Amino acid sequence: CVWCEDLQKCRLAVCFVWQIAMIILFGIFIRYNEESDAHWIEHKTSKNISSNIENDYYFRYPSFQDVHVMIFVGFGFLMTFLKRYSFGAVGFNFLIAGFGLQWALLMQGWFHSLDPMDGKIKIGVESMINADFCVASCLIAYGAVLGKVSPVQLMVMTLFGVTLYAVEEYIILSLIHARDAGGSMVIHTFGAYYGLSISWMLYRPNLDQSKHRIGSVYHSDVFAMIGTLFLWMFWPSFNSAISDHGDGQHRAAINTYLSLAATVLTALAISSLSQKTGKLDMVHIQNATLAGGVAVGTAAEFMLMPYGSLIVGFCCGIISTLGYIYITPFMEKYLKIHDTCGIHNLHAMPGVIGGIVGAITAAAASEDVYGKEGLMNTFDFTGEWKEMVPTRQGGHQAAGLCVALCFGIGGGIIVGCILRLPIWGDAPDNSCFDDEIYWEFKQSMFGPTQYCEYCGDSMAPSPPLKCCGCVSSGLPR
Amino acid sequence: CVWCEDLQKCRLAVCFVWQIAMIILFGIFIRYNEESDAHWIEHKTSKNISSNIENDYYFRYPSFQDVHVMIFVGFGFLMTFLKRYSFGAVGFNFLIAGFGLQWALLMQGWFHSLDPMDGKIKIGVESMINADFCVASCLIAYGAVLGKVSPVQLMVMTLFGVTLYAVEEYIILSLIHARDAGGSMVIHTFGAYYGLSISWMLYRPNLDQSKHRIGSVYHSDVFAMIGTLFLWMFWPSFNSAISDHGDGQHRAAINTYLSLAATVLTALAISSLSQKTGKLDMVHIQNATLAGGVAVGTAAEFMLMPYGSLIVGFCCGIISTLGYIYITPFMEKYLKIHDTCGIHNLHAMPGVIGGIVGAITAAAASEDVYGKEGLMNTFDFTGEWKEMVPTRQGGHQAAGLCVALCFGIGGGIIVGCILRLPIWGDAPDNSCFDDEIYWEFKQSMFGPTQYCEYCGDSMAPSPPLKCCGCVSSGLPR
Amino acid sequence: CVWCEDLQKCRLAVCFVWQIAMIILFGIFIRYNEESDAHWIEHKTSKNISSNIENDYYFRYPSFQDVHVMIFVGFGFLMTFLKRYSFGAVGFNFLIAGFGLQWALLMQGWFHSLDPMDGKIKIGVESMINADFCVASCLIAYGAVLGKVSPVQLMVMTLFGVTLYAVEEYIILSLIHARDAGGSMVIHTFGAYYGLSISWMLYRPNLDQSKHRIGSVYHSDVFAMIGTLFLWMFWPSFNSAISDHGDGQHRAAINTYLSLAATVLTALAISSLSQKTGKLDMVHIQNATLAGGVAVGTAAEFMLMPYGSLIVGFCCGIISTLGYIYITPFMEKYLKIHDTCGIHNLHAMPGVIGGIVGAITAAAASEDVYGKEGLMNTFDFTGEWKEMVPTRQGGHQAAGLCVALCFGIGGGIIVGCILRLPIWGDAPDNSCFDDEIYWEFKQSMFGPTQYCEYCGDSMAPSPPLKCCGCVSSGLPR
Repeated sequence: CVWCEDLQKCRLAVCFVWQIAMIILFGIFIRYNEESDAHWIEHKTSKNISSNIENDYYFRYPSFQDVHVMIFVGFGFLMTFLKRYSFGAVGFNFLIAGFGLQWALLMQGWFHSLDPMDGKIKIGVESMINADFCVASCLIAYGAVLGKVSPVQLMVMTLFGVTLYAVEEYIILSLIHARDAGGSMVIHTFGAYYGLSISWMLYRPNLDQSKHRIGSVYHSDVFAMIGTLFLWMFWPSFNSAISDHGDGQHRAAINTYLSLAATVLTALAISSLSQKTGKLDMVHIQNATLAGGVAVGTAAEFMLMPYGSLIVGFCCGIISTLGYIYITPFMEKYLKIHDTCGIHNLHAMPGVIGGIVGAITAAAASEDVYGKEGLMNTFDFTGEWKEMVPTRQGGHQAAGLCVALCFGIGGGIIVGCILRLPIWGDAPDNSCFDDEIYWEFKQSMFGPTQYCEYCGDSMAPSPPLKCCGCVSSGLPR
Repeated sequence: CVWCEDLQKCRLAVCFVWQIAMIILFGIFIRYNEESDAHWIEHKTSKNISSNIENDYYFRYPSFQDVHVMIFVGFGFLMTFLKRYSFGAVGFNFLIAGFGLQWALLMQGWFHSLDPMDGKIKIGVESMINADFCVASCLIAYGAVLGKVSPVQLMVMTLFGVTLYAVEEYIILSLIHARDAGGSMVIHTFGAYYGLSISWMLYRPNLDQSKHRIGSVYHSDVFAMIGTLFLWMFWPSFNSAISDHGDGQHRAAINTYLSLAATVLTALAISSLSQKTGKLDMVHIQNATLAGGVAVGTAAEFMLMPYGSLIVGFCCGIISTLGYIYITPFMEKYLKIHDTCGIHNLHAMPGVIGGIVGAITAAAASEDVYGKEGLMNTFDFTGEWKEMVPTRQGGHQAAGLCVALCFGIGGGIIVGCILRLPIWGDAPDNSCFDDEIYWEFKQSMFGPTQYCEYCGDSMAPSPPLKCCGCVSSGLPR
Repeated sequence: CVWCEDLQKCRLAVCFVWQIAMIILFGIFIRYNEESDAHWIEHKTSKNISSNIENDYYFRYPSFQDVHVMIFVGFGFLMTFLKRYSFGAVGFNFLIAGFGLQWALLMQGWFHSLDPMDGKIKIGVESMINADFCVASCLIAYGAVLGKVSPVQLMVMTLFGVTLYAVEEYIILSLIHARDAGGSMVIHTFGAYYGLSISWMLYRPNLDQSKHRIGSVYHSDVFAMIGTLFLWMFWPSFNSAISDHGDGQHRAAINTYLSLAATVLTALAISSLSQKTGKLDMVHIQNATLAGGVAVGTAAEFMLMPYGSLIVGFCCGIISTLGYIYITPFMEKYLKIHDTCGIHNLHAMPGVIGGIVGAITAAAASEDVYGKEGLMNTFDFTGEWKEMVPTRQGGHQAAGLCVALCFGIGGGIIVGCILRLPIWGDAPDNSCFDDEIYWEFKQSMFGPTQYCEYCGDSMAPSPPLKCCGCVSSGLPR
């Protein structure tokens, strides 16, 4: 590289350039919408809105903040479980999200909220939620490649991921007119297959060299539980954040709450039943307990009924936990797909189930259950979709699921090819899952001791690198 | 057990069966209420409601999410302080809550929101808050037996706890017509005495064998502070979550905010004064600082006045901290009640104080202070309680407190007897407070080193089991 | 001291006395405001308010809770990065906040919400937010002296800090009529210079003796990320919490969201570019990523435009990170100001920038952009300020910034002098940044092992004090 001496720096300087591009594009395209512009007071009078409280902000802002917590703390901490990759988990998660959400505002704006009057994108609280949603799909994909890619690769992955997401979302929601409030298809199915395809393309046959770093220590598992719980608790807000005002948001929250509760029980039961000793596995508790929230995403705003939500959660808890036990090792061994966080079990399978549940629920909708106006409202049978009927809507939902799958797998393969180029500075096979190659570790941080190459415990500084335990017991390994 | 080879598995498979039962019962009984049903739009027109924002969802959902965080992160992390029981604290807390809230929706529904028209329970956001409240009482009880019971025992405890709670709540709130927005009596007094009675019935004379595991390490105490702070911060939402729309919720939040602030100061002062060296004790900071929130629960929605809240917080900070110093050791030594988290100091005593404060505040209410309509609204002097007067209301409040105490102690003794049956697979006396008997610890988790039997520090793997420090210093213990 | 045998105790007993004084003052002065008083129902009728949802509580309570989380978890955990001062960080943060918010309610009440009719201060949800804001400025100041002062010194610092804040806020917002919704000037500039001046007055030439304890360990850095993320996520609520209902809050949230996203990218880029190896520094990620939220505080509610927010965030990410690299060491070496958390980079510089941005944005405001009514509303050109024009408003904003600076520096120097009196029991130079002098460490906490004096790792208990690594490698260090 003739630009600078050090390649790593050159790569991260991209952030800098990118941010300037964002400022210019935002300057050209992005403006406040009617509800966040100072003209709101005039708009209010002209639309005969009686009170400030009817500003969309008050309908959606609490949910937005919950979603925000899921993106940054939820996803970030969920991935801290690795014993030596907590900085990378939470730090790169932060980078991806901060980077992705700006691009998402632009891409989604071009497709969804371009004002034909002045050619500007008008943003408000709903745009922020949608940008967070879009970023979520990229963070899901990050779960599959956690510890194996460089920050620059992550940014490329996010750049394309957001772009693909915006297109796919436009096709599914606007062209096909599928409904997907909680994003089972749009976010989870797409994000997970996108990540898995990339991980497949970036398969490292010699990853065994970093095998001793895959795994947790006691406190890293507790940190991961922070992520799990914030995701779990706020999932009702995630699924209800952009559904219809009033009963739509209310119902979506209830359905998600119930589905998640059921998942906890079945995930624990299967986790215990699968072990000879009947003990519980922390990996299942951290991940499989969340599957119910994914699977109820599409149908959350429909009249799924409380028992329907429980059934969805019940099934997903089983499937997801079994996935961790059987499918993840199978995929690694036979399909050459290494999935660090098991996103196939947490997002891909439950996402597909969610799409199917959504299609069935939509197809089964009737005026009896929803009421005439309720049906129209819930499925948005207005404007050009005035003649739509529930059974056909079910078909459209299924079509949406297929689009999400195609975009995820296809996009992932293409982006994976790009990421295989040898210019991105990814870690060598024996330095994966290791914070030290991307993060400055101060001398004072561990003092003279470092971490044992064999077991990750603190060790004597002079070679051979062994931990105190190994040293004092004279164990060769 | 003839059902399966492994007893532990058999026990946890109960989760599975239970969840199926839940689905069936939900199918028969539970439906959306008017505000979460798709017919809301018609309901809105018929009731002349002008805007979607008047859906109860927008009044209560932000508080619901805060309560949800308290239940899962607050209670869960508060109990992670033990050096080797963090998985159990946060994991079993998760299990109990996920299990209990479904059963609570049913039990509370049968008593409170059964629609006489169609025999269905109609749920909405308030039902979810109430289910979380109900679960809170079981989690409080868990605090007393933390580390000493098996997951199956916890589930039995939760099953009966929720049932008792629903009955007790019905008697106190509906039959006696006591007011208890923040649940000082209904949640805290009941939950704490329920847990203490169970702990008394399950007393282990030889618990000394696990004594070295009772206590914290540096980082486990920091984890516990996460729990403390989320409980502390969101307590105003807890106490205001189900109080009256408008001034009721507003006032409850202010009172709780003030009471908690006062508690912090007196808890710290007493903690420092009680030590010879004047140092602070982390146990007091983690727990006693919360007592003010418990004690102001009942009276939070009344006109307690800001200084009244401060007085309540002031007293509870003192009493709770002194409880940790004097009463907990006393109870263990003389009453044979081992209380792992000190719930007697954090929930039982402040809960009783809260009930008394509520009774006094209610009895002292007057039209001067509340206004005519305000008095009627705050105490719900409508319908069959139209003739009620504040002084009599004070008596009813006191009666409510007695009912909570009776249910807690009586129920706890009965359930404790059931839990003494030798079929529940609880840990032996020398394996209490230890995650390893219920959680799969992977080899990679600690590498060749394990934890010292004496001090909990990392150690050499070969016998005798001593930590590096012990090894190199040659200390026998 | 003739009052008690032990000085430390005597000092902390001050809490006790102080709390009693608070109760008396609250009894004399503080009452509920119209929206939290039981007379609300009558007030509603008389003011023709149609629904309970128009109670200010529903406009501001979700934001209040987010701010509350920032104060207690955000600031508290951000400071846990030190390897041996996590208890002090989160515990004393708790103490300061609990102590300060009561005094803030009184001080701010006297200046802002004294009811002339009855001489009482009327509090509501906005008062609680303002009290939290006031406390924030003291917690910022704490960042500069973290680990070097005693709890009693902190309380004195908070007592004067809150008092100064209330006066300064009154001058800036009421007398000068500057606008400062997110407190760039009032909170951040004041708080940071207040803390830095105190740190300057308390400069310890021999702090080198505690140098080995300045620095983090792996998990303490992960704890600090909890603080960072909760601050980052909830900053939009901070800046919008007390801005105007409707578009004001909406716009403030959007601007802050965007500014913070831009800061993440530039902070990471500069962090990487500044290191020879191109690695990232956790200190920058934990702190500099937040600068954008500070700098957009004043202008958040103005029509800063989305690209304007990005520009502010962009610049602050650069300046703040460079501050950590160049200015902090410079200040310590040449100006004798030791700034433990680098508040000069996170709060002082961005706060000043925020004030300037606010002044420019205000001066550039026009009816074109805001609309006639919008301009009047946003800048509150009503009552005695009816004749105000934007250009002059810009001047007033700049004047406000100067007042904040003067109060911060002047107040800090005076309070610093008071804190130099030898009666406050601060730690000796070789015991700074050490929890053990203020917190009771139980024997069981670390068992026979203790921490190495040299590297902070666990060590053998007998002298010479070395960690296992040092022992087994024979390093003298």
